[in-house]
Amino acid sequence: MDQLSVEHLLGIKYLNANDIDLIFRTADGFKEVINRPIKKVPSLRDITIANLFFENSTRTKLSFELAQKRLSADVINFSASQSSVKKGETLIDTVNNILSMKVDIVVMRHGSVGAGVFLSKHVDAKIVNAGDGTHEHPTQALLDSYSIREKLGAVKGKKIVIVGDILHSRVALSNIFALQLQGAEVKVCGPTTLIPKYISSLGVEVETNLKKALEWCDVANVLRVQHERMDIKYFPSTREYTQLFGINKEILNNLGKKIVIMHPGPINRGVEITSDVADSDQSIILNQVENGVAIRMAVIYLLAQQIKR
Amino acid sequence: MDQLSVEHLLGIKYLNANDIDLIFRTADGFKEVINRPIKKVPSLRDITIANLFFENSTRTKLSFELAQKRLSADVINFSASQSSVKKGETLIDTVNNILSMKVDIVVMRHGSVGAGVFLSKHVDAKIVNAGDGTHEHPTQALLDSYSIREKLGAVKGKKIVIVGDILHSRVALSNIFALQLQGAEVKVCGPTTLIPKYISSLGVEVETNLKKALEWCDVANVLRVQHERMDIKYFPSTREYTQLFGINKEILNNLGKKIVIMHPGPINRGVEITSDVADSDQSIILNQVENGVAIRMAVIYLLAQQIKR
Amino acid sequence: MDQLSVEHLLGIKYLNANDIDLIFRTADGFKEVINRPIKKVPSLRDITIANLFFENSTRTKLSFELAQKRLSADVINFSASQSSVKKGETLIDTVNNILSMKVDIVVMRHGSVGAGVFLSKHVDAKIVNAGDGTHEHPTQALLDSYSIREKLGAVKGKKIVIVGDILHSRVALSNIFALQLQGAEVKVCGPTTLIPKYISSLGVEVETNLKKALEWCDVANVLRVQHERMDIKYFPSTREYTQLFGINKEILNNLGKKIVIMHPGPINRGVEITSDVADSDQSIILNQVENGVAIRMAVIYLLAQQIKR
Repeated sequence: MDQLSVEHLLGIKYLNANDIDLIFRTADGFKEVINRPIKKVPSLRDITIANLFFENSTRTKLSFELAQKRLSADVINFSASQSSVKKGETLIDTVNNILSMKVDIVVMRHGSVGAGVFLSKHVDAKIVNAGDGTHEHPTQALLDSYSIREKLGAVKGKKIVIVGDILHSRVALSNIFALQLQGAEVKVCGPTTLIPKYISSLGVEVETNLKKALEWCDVANVLRVQHERMDIKYFPSTREYTQLFGINKEILNNLGKKIVIMHPGPINRGVEITSDVADSDQSIILNQVENGVAIRMAVIYLLAQQIKR
Repeated sequence: MDQLSVEHLLGIKYLNANDIDLIFRTADGFKEVINRPIKKVPSLRDITIANLFFENSTRTKLSFELAQKRLSADVINFSASQSSVKKGETLIDTVNNILSMKVDIVVMRHGSVGAGVFLSKHVDAKIVNAGDGTHEHPTQALLDSYSIREKLGAVKGKKIVIVGDILHSRVALSNIFALQLQGAEVKVCGPTTLIPKYISSLGVEVETNLKKALEWCDVANVLRVQHERMDIKYFPSTREYTQLFGINKEILNNLGKKIVIMHPGPINRGVEITSDVADSDQSIILNQVENGVAIRMAVIYLLAQQIKR
Repeated sequence: MDQLSVEHLLGIKYLNANDIDLIFRTADGFKEVINRPIKKVPSLRDITIANLFFENSTRTKLSFELAQKRLSADVINFSASQSSVKKGETLIDTVNNILSMKVDIVVMRHGSVGAGVFLSKHVDAKIVNAGDGTHEHPTQALLDSYSIREKLGAVKGKKIVIVGDILHSRVALSNIFALQLQGAEVKVCGPTTLIPKYISSLGVEVETNLKKALEWCDVANVLRVQHERMDIKYFPSTREYTQLFGINKEILNNLGKKIVIMHPGPINRGVEITSDVADSDQSIILNQVENGVAIRMAVIYLLAQQIKR
């Protein structure tokens, strides 16, 4: 059977194009499963998975949990707010304790860049990075690419613009890596204060004019505005952001072509995107959510295949 | 097979007498199940249910969760405190996200009147209202009526008085609808400041004298005193409430008949009800809790029958 | 089949030596189970267990939950922060409500000494005490003794010193009872202000000199320093505590023998124990965690055998 080239899913930057292809083909099968009346397979009845969320993330956590249940894995949930973490225990001790209870796979969301990589070097379990600060969020990038492939037939050769607050985004970097790896062209568009300086070193062009960015692209992946960032330090106000970078039906209708609209959620309706856009047939926002479960099933399934049993 | 006349359980006011009868007969079967050693049936192995509690409610949530597990459904729990709701996402977006993960039934507790009805118009899932503000709490009313039927053989023709803070109660309105639909007579008894003005328009008499109310009734459904309401705006004090509307053994012994005592819980022992009453053989308080699981199994089972599979 | 002499696991002081032996032999079997690829047995498919944690305890709760899932029991979780307890409901009412939903076994962590004993007299379910204040925490003591037996072949005749804040410890008392019952010798070592006065009445010697204590013992069970206790009332400072009672590699290397190091977790690395000790081959800290699941499976399994089915 095909195998991933990696032992953990720590970030897209550790994957090769074959890995992504394998994950997508595996997800195709699971997408059929979750659209059947009985949405479960007994594949991972012998696997125990711990979800360690040191930061809140309702939708990512729900998606992982459902993926794990659909695979018939045993699931234990651990959130930092109820944990010994507050008692000053180290991350390695926390995780080693959980692993001593015979856990095979750890899915972790953590606020610190590199938390997953660090953990993978010190504990004996498969690690799935469910977001490490503003660094990588690989399953989100995989489900985004998978949704583009589903909508447009392929990712290769497509032009994708990521619109918004790139600097503080949890998903931008993984998306750039995944899209480039699959042969797509990527630009970013947003206020210059919200675009990290390293972006050009990644071969990503910056376009500060929204109209031009949309005219160029096949797909616009619209990031959530985080109101708390819209202060004087980064940008005048949310209202000005919406005027310059908000996507509405009028802008899209004037493009002369029909681009695909994506959003990782949760949406601020009327801020970065209007309702008529979010709910239009150009939007694949809810498909992204649906595909998230299939992608997470695929990632966990493929990593579990490497566990000796 | 018999079917409910409704597609959701949004409130008792949308049900007819046949619906209630069907739910009760279905609950009879499930009550046998949950009293067997193996308390589970495999009926809903192909159904995924999301419990969305935007307000805390330990006992209602536990009861729904147990009902769902007894039916072998897949269950995901979502509580607002850990959710994107705080990030300003709309209710419809939150629920649509969850539904995109292939959820069939949503059980929702929400602080706003009409939240369930609103949702049922905008999302493609069965909705069970687990309490919408002070409006309806239909499964509570069903389990209350079911417990009266179990104790007294029938609801029809019985006289029920609801005692306490009707104005802020989550359960009074649904109880009135359910009891009247089944041919019972309903009165309310409490301080006039805690009885809503619309009550007479429902054909419900107000009796401010507790002794008279108890002499009239077969069943007293005693509501919880919410201490925070017992301020100068509504009523002098909790202590005065207890003197005028608290139910104790002495009052009951002087009635010349043995009435049935109910309470939706949690009980304030010594406030609206004394311990010797709550724990007496007149009380069916714990039967209500037990019947809650059977009633919720029945409601979910019957709604699930309408899902195409 | 062998049976426990008790109907609940309320504390070690209610057990006899045969009970401990039976629990250990049962745990031996379950330890094999949890090291198999499929870590589950279908033994308790007909049992419903409620975990009632009125105080936070991540690792104990996770360990119990995993034990229950490995036994295929139905599990419902209840934590005080989301509960009616805050509404002033009594403990008995809370538990009776849960039991009315047909729960067979209650695992309870509570801040008050004797909460489990109290409950066992008033409700109709098996009670497992998962910690009642600074009183008993029997499953912790059982897994500690089991880990000593595993490492050294037996508990009988071994010399164990418990090091640290005995006064506020949740685990010291149960450990003393369990070790003495199995024929071990027990001493305690710590600042005199942190050793309860009743300790000598238990036949436990106090040794305030760490070096002497370690020279005497085969096993040192090192308790967690609770920083909030290290104030002027009990002890000068955490730093002085570490100087006098902290265990490091140098102290151990000078002993002329290799003692076993235990810790109930979570560890304060560099305070009561250094990392080179905690992670050394003398330490069985992670074995304790692993054995915790097997011991809890055994306790729950044995209590469940007493339930008529």
